[in-house]
Amino acid sequence: MPTSAPQPPARRRGGRRGGDADTRGDILRAAREHFAQGYEATSVRAVARAADVDPSLIVQFFGGKDGLFKAVLDEAVQPDEGVGRVLADDGGTDLGQRLAAYFFGMWEDPARRHPFQAMLVSAASNEAAATVLREFVRGEVIARIGAMIEGDDAELRAELAGSQLIGAALVRYVYRIPPLCDAPLSDVVGRVGRAVQSHLAG
Amino acid sequence: MPTSAPQPPARRRGGRRGGDADTRGDILRAAREHFAQGYEATSVRAVARAADVDPSLIVQFFGGKDGLFKAVLDEAVQPDEGVGRVLADDGGTDLGQRLAAYFFGMWEDPARRHPFQAMLVSAASNEAAATVLREFVRGEVIARIGAMIEGDDAELRAELAGSQLIGAALVRYVYRIPPLCDAPLSDVVGRVGRAVQSHLAG
Repeated sequence: MPTSAPQPPARRRGGRRGGDADTRGDILRAAREHFAQGYEATSVRAVARAADVDPSLIVQFFGGKDGLFKAVLDEAVQPDEGVGRVLADDGGTDLGQRLAAYFFGMWEDPARRHPFQAMLVSAASNEAAATVLREFVRGEVIARIGAMIEGDDAELRAELAGSQLIGAALVRYVYRIPPLCDAPLSDVVGRVGRAVQSHLAG
Repeated sequence: MPTSAPQPPARRRGGRRGGDADTRGDILRAAREHFAQGYEATSVRAVARAADVDPSLIVQFFGGKDGLFKAVLDEAVQPDEGVGRVLADDGGTDLGQRLAAYFFGMWEDPARRHPFQAMLVSAASNEAAATVLREFVRGEVIARIGAMIEGDDAELRAELAGSQLIGAALVRYVYRIPPLCDAPLSDVVGRVGRAVQSHLAG
């Protein structure tokens, strides 16, 4: 974490201005590509070089590597806008179906899928990545979903629903085991959505 | 694969005999420890050194690194004895409960859990490990379970059931996200078993 107040953004050789929305977007784009290669393999310095900014700007914006990873996850999962909208909309289909459709929609989009996949892989062998994943899943996802359902065990049921989503996505998109990896998306969403809904309904 | 017929086992400096059941067990024990560090990080040569046998003996017994990995998985999952027994026993509880109890029992035993966990991690980033996982899960697990249930989509339902087991185990044992990682084993088996049974029942 920076100890001083934010300074005017540093300029680099190309004369690129730091600190505006485009710069933040450039850093996130570069970070997404780097983290897709794994958490350990990514450094703030390498992301700064790819985005053509000073590393101190990344520290200023995101606090460091963990904060940058969290920002990439936020961008992929969109817990506020995306998950929030799924939770708020109660018209037509049940919550299990809506969550499954939203989650698999994210996996179908490579730009959102790759950082999430990198997180799942990295967190299985790297404790720093596991800590980011744990805080993200608990704070941003389980807490929101758990608050929508009833019962003392609401968080446990929300987490089991999430474990079904993660397991099915791994088998379909990462391990690519037939027949799940070849089944039509709508069929998978329907089946997984029913399992998710069963957990949520308790 | 060896092109000649099996030869009498080679002796190494310590005078250890090759080729008997103890030697095979020693190789598997060494392989289990090495593969727990990851598929890529493991070599036939290093396992041979740890087991104090000639590398050619591992090729003779297991065909090479992939075959050795498969043998370690067989030993952890025990698809013949373990899963076969779970499938055959229809007394008392339903298949979903029995499969969940068997699967989480495996994860509770570090000697069986570590190679399985290493496989899940390695297969997410290494195509050779993914191929072994894919063939193992399809050939040894999904085919057996799919054959026990009815319907044209039996294999897809068996795989979705497996995806629930894998997802819940990852969240509980690898990512260790509360409250699932702190919940009593019997509670987890009961809840996950019901989800597995729903998939199997269709």
